[in-house]
Amino acid sequence: MAGLEQMIEYIKELHFNDEDIQFLRSKNMFSEGFLDYLKNFKFACDIWAVPEGTPIFPGEPIITVKGPMIQAQFVETLILLMINHQSLIATKASRIVRAADGRAVMEFGTRRAHGTSAAAYGARAAYIAGCAGTACAVVDRDMGVPALGTMAHSWVQMFDSEYEAFKQYAKIYPQNCILLVDTYNVLKSGIPNAIKIFKEMKPQKMGIRIDSGDITYLTKNARKMLDDAGLPDCQICISNSLDEYLIREVLREGACIDSFGVGERLITAKSEPVFGGVYKLAAVEKGGKMIPKIKISENVIKITNPGYKKDYRFYNNETGRVLGDVIALADEPKPGEDGYVIFDPNAVWKRKKLKNYRVEELQKQIFAAGKCVYDSPTVGEIREYCAKQIDTLWPEMLRFENPQVYYVDLSEKLWKMKNELLAEYAGE
Amino acid sequence: MAGLEQMIEYIKELHFNDEDIQFLRSKNMFSEGFLDYLKNFKFACDIWAVPEGTPIFPGEPIITVKGPMIQAQFVETLILLMINHQSLIATKASRIVRAADGRAVMEFGTRRAHGTSAAAYGARAAYIAGCAGTACAVVDRDMGVPALGTMAHSWVQMFDSEYEAFKQYAKIYPQNCILLVDTYNVLKSGIPNAIKIFKEMKPQKMGIRIDSGDITYLTKNARKMLDDAGLPDCQICISNSLDEYLIREVLREGACIDSFGVGERLITAKSEPVFGGVYKLAAVEKGGKMIPKIKISENVIKITNPGYKKDYRFYNNETGRVLGDVIALADEPKPGEDGYVIFDPNAVWKRKKLKNYRVEELQKQIFAAGKCVYDSPTVGEIREYCAKQIDTLWPEMLRFENPQVYYVDLSEKLWKMKNELLAEYAGE
Repeated sequence: MAGLEQMIEYIKELHFNDEDIQFLRSKNMFSEGFLDYLKNFKFACDIWAVPEGTPIFPGEPIITVKGPMIQAQFVETLILLMINHQSLIATKASRIVRAADGRAVMEFGTRRAHGTSAAAYGARAAYIAGCAGTACAVVDRDMGVPALGTMAHSWVQMFDSEYEAFKQYAKIYPQNCILLVDTYNVLKSGIPNAIKIFKEMKPQKMGIRIDSGDITYLTKNARKMLDDAGLPDCQICISNSLDEYLIREVLREGACIDSFGVGERLITAKSEPVFGGVYKLAAVEKGGKMIPKIKISENVIKITNPGYKKDYRFYNNETGRVLGDVIALADEPKPGEDGYVIFDPNAVWKRKKLKNYRVEELQKQIFAAGKCVYDSPTVGEIREYCAKQIDTLWPEMLRFENPQVYYVDLSEKLWKMKNELLAEYAGE
Repeated sequence: MAGLEQMIEYIKELHFNDEDIQFLRSKNMFSEGFLDYLKNFKFACDIWAVPEGTPIFPGEPIITVKGPMIQAQFVETLILLMINHQSLIATKASRIVRAADGRAVMEFGTRRAHGTSAAAYGARAAYIAGCAGTACAVVDRDMGVPALGTMAHSWVQMFDSEYEAFKQYAKIYPQNCILLVDTYNVLKSGIPNAIKIFKEMKPQKMGIRIDSGDITYLTKNARKMLDDAGLPDCQICISNSLDEYLIREVLREGACIDSFGVGERLITAKSEPVFGGVYKLAAVEKGGKMIPKIKISENVIKITNPGYKKDYRFYNNETGRVLGDVIALADEPKPGEDGYVIFDPNAVWKRKKLKNYRVEELQKQIFAAGKCVYDSPTVGEIREYCAKQIDTLWPEMLRFENPQVYYVDLSEKLWKMKNELLAEYAGE
């Protein structure tokens, strides 16, 4: 889950100014009464949400908006956009960080991002998920995500020789000098020149970056050349269309890599660039009573869970790992910790009694009657929390392909109510 | 090609304010001389670019920046981001619009876009490529792209019955009443209720939208029900994870569709979400002389074309269709129209003498010494120009899978210079 802080900022700012009203009036589609309503609009809903950095699963409510229908409807698109986008990138980045197995992953994707906010908030989401920082410097200034980066090919090309280019760079960055060695020829020119410079200029920290060619072959040879030159501390950084699959594969082959610069495939979530969160009407309050609403579909996965709901996560007391999530109606009591029977809502004979666990409500209140009641943590705090949250998942859930499916079950009461509504509409 | 107007706006605004300088100073990485330079920074480069709406091909220069190295370097990331993003979405949208074969395509992807600028500028790019408009209303106000849309499922769910929901909607939108018929059951409930409402309320224009279920089966049945009810003018709109492949397939199956709402797969360019434009140093001016620069790579496709260049497009005089592009050095004369020999730079024995053609330079000047000298057309003008430009391409180039590869060749002089530089570095 990511993007909540930006959602909060958006809702705090939500209003319709004169220019907006004038534009809408010019369309000749809206009554003056409606335009007046917009002019005096003041957000008054309650909102609950799952905190950023928490793992979320298909089918569970991650945001709940309760309030006047017209208001709850206005915020649909922007809430979806912000949560879908950052949750997408955080998920992709988390996979890449896990593949890197403790090595630093730097977010290098700005130039291939889908617009400026994709670059900036994508970098934020990547950091939350465990990246070391970003090459998008404004994100450091505006959101506290560390800016970092290396040299460009144009730097090397600008000088009369690669050696001269490296020398000038080492003069400017004596603390941390990472040289890009693949402008002409990695093994014949780039690394020999880098070694010369490191010996002459003795930077405090040193490294090389390789941005093309075969990663395993080049890094094994590079490592040997650097070690033979007495530079075992010189780090090797790799970039070039990386993702979790390629990183895992080259590490398995024994590639000698200390850090990764990951660009286009992270910032666009190339393997699956759509995060399909939806925003659905679940209940309508009428005469003080919550009337559950359902959306039926020929596509069973598009049938919604009706009613005003809460979701709970169960953790095993011994391992600290998750056991399953249960979606219940908001007026049900929180599940007790003395034995709880979960069942598969699509195969109800599959039942299991949970024991020795603790239960946590997933959503926290964010807005109360339009007023923000939530203190957003810093990105650093979210990043730490996220790392701990990932540790509550079982390794088989973290497999990149065909992972163990996590239980997101319904309470008995919710399941019955849903089936009654489905039967009612089927009979109609 | 798309995104040029936003690139121009960005460059016009480019400056470093006190807050920027203070942030950079706080990093303890930059000299006061450099920070002073930034404070007084004034963009002074020349820029040429291919106009928006023009088809562009791998390997050809689409933007040329000429000026002080430090300035040309500053603008790299934002230029790439803007041009890569909008060109990506325009390309994807063009494919989808072509698959729709004359039917309207509406851009519905805001909620799945990668952030707010992906939504807004993605909608702009989609419109340029031929979409009818967007459901992202601010893009109408800010960029003149028509806003349009239909009803939400929540509208239907909010009322006690689907019939009541349709009735209220038809009251509000008597000019153009498109009813979403898949909230409960398309054929048993949605369409019968829609027919009732259309007959009772007689809206000026009417339509139904189906957002789930099998498109071909449902639209064929829907068409028959509407026709049988004496509503042959009622339009059928389809949405739900559409792209060019699915649209082509259901039309081939005889689905009865008048328009498409296309969301997530357009706005994220799901089939290929990375547009890999790069920004490379091509030449350095030294003592009034242009010294060509090359970037070599183990990946042959990453080897750059050196030198300060221009590109030309050849059109057949009879058909108006493209014959090929040629990249030449800027100091070469424009190719004459009395016979020109093109050759494949990777297979030089493949030669062809072009006859009966006209030649156009692809890039136009946008900035001269930092001043914008280009009048951006309106999005409507770009959209019209784009449609005409697509007509200059051969149908076999427009195939979705494995299309005919278009010639992007080098002039004899550029080819020779490139090979001399490659030989020089190989010998080093």
